[in-house]
Amino acid sequence: MWCYETLHSDVKFGLKGKILYKKKTAHQNCLISKTKDFGKVLFLDNVIQTTEADEYIYHEMLVHPLLLTHPNPESILVIGGGDGGVIREILKHPVKELIMVEIDKTIIDLSKKYLPKISKGSFSDKRLGLIIDDGAKYIQETPKKFDLIIVDSPDPVGPAKMLFSKKFYQDVYKRLKSSGIMIRQTGSTFLQANVLKSNYRKIKDVFPLSFIQLASIPTYTGGYFSFVIGSKKINFLKKSKKQIKQKYLKLKLKTKYYNPGIQFAALQLPNNLLRLVK
Amino acid sequence: MWCYETLHSDVKFGLKGKILYKKKTAHQNCLISKTKDFGKVLFLDNVIQTTEADEYIYHEMLVHPLLLTHPNPESILVIGGGDGGVIREILKHPVKELIMVEIDKTIIDLSKKYLPKISKGSFSDKRLGLIIDDGAKYIQETPKKFDLIIVDSPDPVGPAKMLFSKKFYQDVYKRLKSSGIMIRQTGSTFLQANVLKSNYRKIKDVFPLSFIQLASIPTYTGGYFSFVIGSKKINFLKKSKKQIKQKYLKLKLKTKYYNPGIQFAALQLPNNLLRLVK
Repeated sequence: MWCYETLHSDVKFGLKGKILYKKKTAHQNCLISKTKDFGKVLFLDNVIQTTEADEYIYHEMLVHPLLLTHPNPESILVIGGGDGGVIREILKHPVKELIMVEIDKTIIDLSKKYLPKISKGSFSDKRLGLIIDDGAKYIQETPKKFDLIIVDSPDPVGPAKMLFSKKFYQDVYKRLKSSGIMIRQTGSTFLQANVLKSNYRKIKDVFPLSFIQLASIPTYTGGYFSFVIGSKKINFLKKSKKQIKQKYLKLKLKTKYYNPGIQFAALQLPNNLLRLVK
Repeated sequence: MWCYETLHSDVKFGLKGKILYKKKTAHQNCLISKTKDFGKVLFLDNVIQTTEADEYIYHEMLVHPLLLTHPNPESILVIGGGDGGVIREILKHPVKELIMVEIDKTIIDLSKKYLPKISKGSFSDKRLGLIIDDGAKYIQETPKKFDLIIVDSPDPVGPAKMLFSKKFYQDVYKRLKSSGIMIRQTGSTFLQANVLKSNYRKIKDVFPLSFIQLASIPTYTGGYFSFVIGSKKINFLKKSKKQIKQKYLKLKLKTKYYNPGIQFAALQLPNNLLRLVK
C-alpha cells in the first residue's frame, strides 16, 4: 500500500510499503512502514521524518560539521531527535555531557522497537541524559550552558512550531558558551523557501555569525535540504579544511555521507539561494 | 488532476496541475501540464523531463562548467535537448559553431509552443544548426570534430537507450578535438545508482579523465542528481577557481543557479558516492 506525504498541497511524494505501526500519540500521528527502496520509514503527521536508507545524510550533517569545527565540544544539548540518529553520531565523538530533550516519549519507544538501526543502542549510553519535556520550555528554564545545541525537530507545523521562533533562538543563544554554535534544519530550499528565509533571518538577527548548509536527501523532496547554523564566534567559512580533516582522521570517524570536502562544499550556495537570503 | 512519474516502481512523485497537451509522438508519449509550484511541466513516457521552475539548474550545470573550463570552446555539439534549454545557455557564450541533433521534432515544436520560456528564441539564433536525426547515428557518421559534446537525453529507457552505451561514448571520443570534453546526465544517485555507476565506468574506460558532478534538482527526485564528464586532457579538479571566476565575470554571464563556487562544490562527492564508483 502507498503512504503519501501531505506536506505540500500540490506535490505528492509516496512510498509503497507495508504498514507496521499506526497510532496517534499524545502529540502527533505516527506511522511506520516498511518499503523496498528506503527500508523502514517513520511518518509523523503524514510527513516523512526518517528512513533507514537515507537518515545518515541528515544526521551526519547535523552533527559532524559542528563537532569537528568547534575546537573542544564537551557539552551538547539535543532538542528533539527522538529516533536516536543524532545522538548516535554525537557519541562517536569524545563528548563529556550530552543531554537530549524530547517532547514525545512514544517516538523514542517506537524507534527502539521498530528502527533500532537508527539509534544503534545510543539510548543506553551512559553519557546520555535523557529528558522527556518540551524543548522550548527546557531551554528557558535550565541554568546550564552548552558548547553546542542541535535542534532536530520536525517542520514548523504541529508541536515543533515554537522551535522556529525568534524567542527560542534567543533562549538558545543564552544557553551557549562563548564559542557556542547551534544548528537546525530549515526544510526544502524550494518547496519551503519561506521557512529557510525567515529562520535564517531570525538566526542572523540573534547570532553574530550565521551560515546555510545544504545537502540532498532523497526522501526530503524539493531540491536541496537546508540547515541554518548560528555561531557566537567561530567562522565556518574561515576554518582550515586541513585542520578539520586531521581531526576527522584522528577520531577515525566512520561516516557514510560526511567528509571534510563535503562540509565545505555544503556551504557554497547557488545564485538562487544567495538571492533568496540576501 | 494529478500526474505521476512511473520511473521508479516503489516511489511515486506527483504534481497537481491542468493538462495542456497529451499525445503520442513517433518516439514517445508526451504530456504537458501546468502546475502551481513548478509552472509548466513536460513529461515524456511518464517521466518528468523539465519544468519551468527548476529547468535552469539542470541546463546551467550541463553547460557552464564545460564552457568555462575549456580554454576556447568554439564548436559544440548537442545531442537531444529538444526543449531548447541547453542551447539557450550555450548561446550566452561567444561560440562559433553549434549543432544540435534531436531525434524528435515534435518535442521542439511543442516546446516552442508551450514552453517558450525555456528556449527563449534560441531556435532562431543564426549560430544554431539544427538537425532532426538519431544522435547515435549522427555521431557515427559525421566527419566533424568538436570542442564540446553535450548529451541532453532522457533516461536509458525508450529512444535514448543507445546514448548510454560504451560504443556511443567511443564515438563521442572520436568526434572530440584533442582538448575535448563531453558531459551527460546519469540520473538520481540514489534511485538510479546503477545508471551512474555503469555509465561512469564506461566513460572512465573511454576517456583519460572523468568526473562526477552533482546538483539537487527538485523535480528529479531521489537525492543528488548526477552528471558524468569525460575529458581528453583538461582536469576539472586542477583548474584555478580564480580563472573560472574571471571568465564568468568577463562574459557577464547571467545564471540563476551556477556560479564558480558551485562548480567546484559540485565535484565533491560524499562518502556513499565515493564508495559507489570506486
